[in-house]
Amino acid sequence: MERLTLHEDPLSGNCYKIRLTAALLGLPIERVAYDIMKGETRTPEFLGTINANGRIPVLQIGEGASRRFLPESNAACWYIAESSDLVPDGRFERADMLRWMFFEQYSHEPNVATLRFWLRYIGEARLNDYQRSQIMPKRVGGEAALALMDEHLAKQDWFVGGAVSLADITLFAYTHVCEAGGFRLQDYPSICAWIGRVQALPRFVPMEDD
Amino acid sequence: MERLTLHEDPLSGNCYKIRLTAALLGLPIERVAYDIMKGETRTPEFLGTINANGRIPVLQIGEGASRRFLPESNAACWYIAESSDLVPDGRFERADMLRWMFFEQYSHEPNVATLRFWLRYIGEARLNDYQRSQIMPKRVGGEAALALMDEHLAKQDWFVGGAVSLADITLFAYTHVCEAGGFRLQDYPSICAWIGRVQALPRFVPMEDD
Repeated sequence: MERLTLHEDPLSGNCYKIRLTAALLGLPIERVAYDIMKGETRTPEFLGTINANGRIPVLQIGEGASRRFLPESNAACWYIAESSDLVPDGRFERADMLRWMFFEQYSHEPNVATLRFWLRYIGEARLNDYQRSQIMPKRVGGEAALALMDEHLAKQDWFVGGAVSLADITLFAYTHVCEAGGFRLQDYPSICAWIGRVQALPRFVPMEDD
Repeated sequence: MERLTLHEDPLSGNCYKIRLTAALLGLPIERVAYDIMKGETRTPEFLGTINANGRIPVLQIGEGASRRFLPESNAACWYIAESSDLVPDGRFERADMLRWMFFEQYSHEPNVATLRFWLRYIGEARLNDYQRSQIMPKRVGGEAALALMDEHLAKQDWFVGGAVSLADITLFAYTHVCEAGGFRLQDYPSICAWIGRVQALPRFVPMEDD
């Protein structure tokens, strides 16, 4: 595989997903850090070269003039893991893995990750009125997402089929640190057991924020 | 391919994506309609059998005891189109297609589709205070998503590589009806030209809401 470089904020779970995917597969990945709190992903250079969206993570593939940039954390995980054991063989199972990855971005991350960011990194006292009005809806949405995961994991060890896949990795990133957003992991015993299984995987690397 | 059945609300763009994918590939798909405004996806039977999330669309694959259910519209499109011309051959291009599909679910649909639903189907007068407070942030977020798309489409005819892919189909669904949510397509000339290209595809089917 061509050289991989991750443009990231080390505190971001979306960035951690990509590092964890590479680590589990034993693939090296270079890291370039930006501080989103300081606007380092909104500079003209970042917007013009790396991501017009002004967001991280961005996975850079290759170097020099032929390098290419891939935004969206779950797409980056897919790029790294395609054709590996982290993507199931069956057509249904592959689509079902993507189903959980879309669920993660639509129903989980905007609630669970955003509350962590607001409450841990911005601080409740500094939230604006609009953010404050969203705490309760995001709490309800995040709890619904965690409850659905817990119900699913009560029936099986991994999200799809009988082995770890990108569905587990991408959902693990913000779930295992959800208490920083005010969620209580003890309410979800099957999630807790699954977190232990992920952390016990060979070559597992922790998130630096833990 | 096994028999495909779409559990849908005919007014939903997320459901339309799946029908359009099947139509472009010439694949038959059965349809079962639910009215989300009447709570038909929140019945115990729906929650217990079809989707514990209470959401549509759900793609049903096969029949009888061996049938399987796949929620999340973009995962359903992937299932139908995998190994077809709607998914690019190159590894980077395939991941880049997924990049736009994750963008659609994270940055586009929650803004562009939600405002259409609120303003066209619920009606501004009947929105609650929380929804009302979200109109402006969703307007800003939706315009940012459309501007990013327009900038990209000024440089190329299709989102990924030189041909239509699932990135185009999934983004088309809510973009081409965005005016129902108060967005102005005339502000995005490259999007308008791209909408015309999608509508000119062989076997194209329109959304029933148009």
